[in-house]
Amino acid sequence: MLLVTSATLPMLLAAGGHGAIGPMLVALAFILVGAKLFGELAERLGQPAVLGELFLGMLLGNLPLLGGPDVSAFGSSEAFVVLSELGAILLLFHVGLESTPKEMLAVGGRALLVAMVGVVTPMALGFAVGEWLRPDESWMLHAFLGAMLAATSVGITARVLKDVGALRTPFARLILGAAVIDDVLGLLILAVVSGIITAAQSGVALAPQALVLIIVKAVLFLVGALVVGSLLSPRVFRGALALRSAGVVQALALGGCCVCAYLALQAGLAPIVGAFAAGLVLEEVHFEGHVQRGDRPLHASLEPLIALFVPVFFVRMGMLVDVRSFGDLSVLGFAVVLTTAAVVGKLACAWAVPRGMSGLSVGLGMLPRGEVGLIFAGIGAQLMLGGRPVIDPGTYAAAVFMVIVTTLLTPPLLLAALRRHPPTP
Amino acid sequence: MLLVTSATLPMLLAAGGHGAIGPMLVALAFILVGAKLFGELAERLGQPAVLGELFLGMLLGNLPLLGGPDVSAFGSSEAFVVLSELGAILLLFHVGLESTPKEMLAVGGRALLVAMVGVVTPMALGFAVGEWLRPDESWMLHAFLGAMLAATSVGITARVLKDVGALRTPFARLILGAAVIDDVLGLLILAVVSGIITAAQSGVALAPQALVLIIVKAVLFLVGALVVGSLLSPRVFRGALALRSAGVVQALALGGCCVCAYLALQAGLAPIVGAFAAGLVLEEVHFEGHVQRGDRPLHASLEPLIALFVPVFFVRMGMLVDVRSFGDLSVLGFAVVLTTAAVVGKLACAWAVPRGMSGLSVGLGMLPRGEVGLIFAGIGAQLMLGGRPVIDPGTYAAAVFMVIVTTLLTPPLLLAALRRHPPTP
Repeated sequence: MLLVTSATLPMLLAAGGHGAIGPMLVALAFILVGAKLFGELAERLGQPAVLGELFLGMLLGNLPLLGGPDVSAFGSSEAFVVLSELGAILLLFHVGLESTPKEMLAVGGRALLVAMVGVVTPMALGFAVGEWLRPDESWMLHAFLGAMLAATSVGITARVLKDVGALRTPFARLILGAAVIDDVLGLLILAVVSGIITAAQSGVALAPQALVLIIVKAVLFLVGALVVGSLLSPRVFRGALALRSAGVVQALALGGCCVCAYLALQAGLAPIVGAFAAGLVLEEVHFEGHVQRGDRPLHASLEPLIALFVPVFFVRMGMLVDVRSFGDLSVLGFAVVLTTAAVVGKLACAWAVPRGMSGLSVGLGMLPRGEVGLIFAGIGAQLMLGGRPVIDPGTYAAAVFMVIVTTLLTPPLLLAALRRHPPTP
Repeated sequence: MLLVTSATLPMLLAAGGHGAIGPMLVALAFILVGAKLFGELAERLGQPAVLGELFLGMLLGNLPLLGGPDVSAFGSSEAFVVLSELGAILLLFHVGLESTPKEMLAVGGRALLVAMVGVVTPMALGFAVGEWLRPDESWMLHAFLGAMLAATSVGITARVLKDVGALRTPFARLILGAAVIDDVLGLLILAVVSGIITAAQSGVALAPQALVLIIVKAVLFLVGALVVGSLLSPRVFRGALALRSAGVVQALALGGCCVCAYLALQAGLAPIVGAFAAGLVLEEVHFEGHVQRGDRPLHASLEPLIALFVPVFFVRMGMLVDVRSFGDLSVLGFAVVLTTAAVVGKLACAWAVPRGMSGLSVGLGMLPRGEVGLIFAGIGAQLMLGGRPVIDPGTYAAAVFMVIVTTLLTPPLLLAALRRHPPTP
C-alpha cells in the first residue's frame, strides 16, 4: 500500500531533482563552520589552518569508529567530488595569479633541476625498497612503487605558502614551479610504467610512439597555454570593454581558468596544472580598464569563492584517510620503510637548491603526495600483472600510510622551516 | 589487448576521480562567459539579464536541433543539478537579506491574501479546463491539473526585481512574501492531491492525520525558523567574535543558510523557502562587530558567489525547455487553453492588491511556474490512476508549454509593468 504520509513528500521532491541537495547542504554547513573552528584551533596551536581542515575531514571520514554514521558514499558522490576539485582548481589559479610567466621562467631552470631530483631520487629509493622487501616480485612492480613515490601534490604546499603570506617570493616560485613540473613528470612516469606493465601483461611490446605522444601533448599544452594565453588575455579583456554589465572580469577570468584546466585534462595532465598556467598568464594590467570603470577586481571575486570551495577540497582529502590503516601491524613495517624512502627521496631536492634559500624548506614543500598519491595507488590496484594486482591490499595500505604521513607532516614541518628561514621577497 | 596510448591516461585519471570535472569545466566556461554575453544582449534590448540566461540555456539544451551535441545527460547530472540548486538557494538567501521579519510581517496579511487568490483561482480554472477538455477523466486528474497551475517559482520574479534594483520596496516584499507563501501552499496542495490519488489507486482512504502532519510540519518550520533564527543569529555572531580568522561572517551566514534550507527540505518544503527565511532572519547589525574588525561584509562575499552560481540555475531552467514541444499541433490547443488559465488565474491576484500598488505588476510577478511547475508535472507523470499515469504524455507536453510560456513571458512583461508603475521605496 502506498499511502502518502508526510515522509512521502520529500521523496516525491527527490524524484523531482531535490535528491542530492539535502546531504550537500548538511556537508557544506559542517565544512563551512567546521573549517573555521578547526582552522582557528590549528592556528592557535601555531599550525597552518589547512591542518585543521584535514583533521576535520579525518573526523568526518572516520565517524563510524566513533559510533557515528558512515558518510563515505557521500564523500565519493559526483557532486561532492566536483565541488572539491573546483576548490583545488580555484586554489591553483589563485596561486598562479601571484606570479607572471617571466618570473616563473627566471626560476624555471632551477625549478626543473629541483623537480628532476625530486622525481629521480624517490623513484630509485622506491625501486630499491621493492627489491629489498619484495624480492620475489617483478622489477615492474618495483618500478611502479618508485613511480608512486615520485608524485607530488602541489595543493598542500601552495596552501601553506598562502596561509603564511609568502606566495610572492622567489622561494615560493621555485617551490611551486618545481612542484608543478613534478606533477607533470609524475603523470608522465605513471603513464610510461602503466604502459609497460599493461603491455607485458598482454604480451605485446609497448608502442614507443604512444609514449612520445604523451610527452608531446603535455609539453605542447604547457608551452601553448603560456604563449597563446599571454597573447590572448590582454586582447580578450580589451575587447570585453564593449560589455557594460558588472562582473565581466570575474566571468572572463574564471571562464579562462576553466578552459585551461579542461585543456590540461585533455592533454593528459591534471586540471590543476591548467588552472595554475591560466593564473600565471593572467595579469592585473589586462583588466585594469574594467576595474577603473567600477567592475569588481579579481581578488575581491576570488576570496569568497576560495573561502567556500577550498575547504571542501581539504576536508575531502582528510576524509580519504582511513585511520584504521595505521593500526595494521603486519603492513606497518613496510609502510614505515616506504614512507622513509618517500621523505628522504624528496628531501634530496635540497641538494639542487641555490645558495641563500633554505634547501630543507624546498624539500619539505615537495613532500606531500595528497590525492595524487592515492590516485596512483588506486591505479596500481587496478593494474594486473601475472594475474594479480600490481599493488596488493597490503602494499595499498602501506601506500595510503605513506600518503597520510607525508600529507599531514608537511604543514607543521614546512611552517617551522619557514619560520626559521623566512623567504626573502 | 590493452595498450596504454595517450588516450588511456585521461581514462586512468577518470578512474581516480577526475571523471565528472571535465564536462563541468566546459559547462562553467560556457555559462560564465555566455551568461555575460546573452545577459548584456538582453539588457541592450531593454530586457532583464535573466532572459538572456534562459535563452542561453534553451540554446544549450536544444543543440541537437542545430546539429550540435546532446548535453541532456550532463544537464541532469548530479553535480550540475546540485550547483544550480545552490544557485537558487543563494539567490533566495540574498533576496531574504534585503528584508527583515518585521517588514515582511507588515505586508504579511496582504501577502497571504494575494497568495490565497493566486492559488485558489488557478486551481479552479485548471479544474474547469480539465472538466471541459478532458470530460471523461476522473475529477482527481482535474484536481491535479489545478494543483499544477497553482505553483509559483519565486526565483524568476526575485531575479527581475534584483535586476531592476527594486528589492528594498514594500512592493517587492508584498510580491515575494506572496510568492513564498504560494510556494508553501503549492507544495501542500500537491501533497494533498497526490495523497488522495495514491490512496484511491490503492483502494484505501487517505489518513487525515497524514495531511494534518504535512501542514503542521510546514507551519512549524516557518514559525520556528523565524523565531528561533531571530533569537539565535545575534548570539551566534557575538560568540563568534572569539574567532580571530577572516571570513567568519561568510562561513556562519552561509552555514546558517544551508542549515535552514536543509530543515525546510526536511519539513517537506523546497530548500529555497528555508534559504529565504534564513535571509530574512539575518540582519547586518548581527555581524557589525566582525566587519568593524576588518572581516569581509556579507554582501562582498555573496556577490561573487551569486555571479558564479545563479546563472547556472537559470541556464539549467532554460535547458529544461524542449522547443519541439512548441511544434506538436495536436497538443497545442490544450496547451494554449491551459496556459491561458494559468495566466488569468495568477493575474486575478491583482484584485487583492492594495490601492497605490500596481495590481498588474503583482499578478505578473506571480506568473512564472519555472522548475516548480516541471517538478509538479513530473510527479503527475509518475502517479498512476486506473492503470494510467495521471499526466499522460500529451498533457505533460501541454504542461511544459505552460511552464515555458509563463516563465519566459514574466521577465519582459514584469519589467514593462515596473517601468510604467515604478514601485515606491
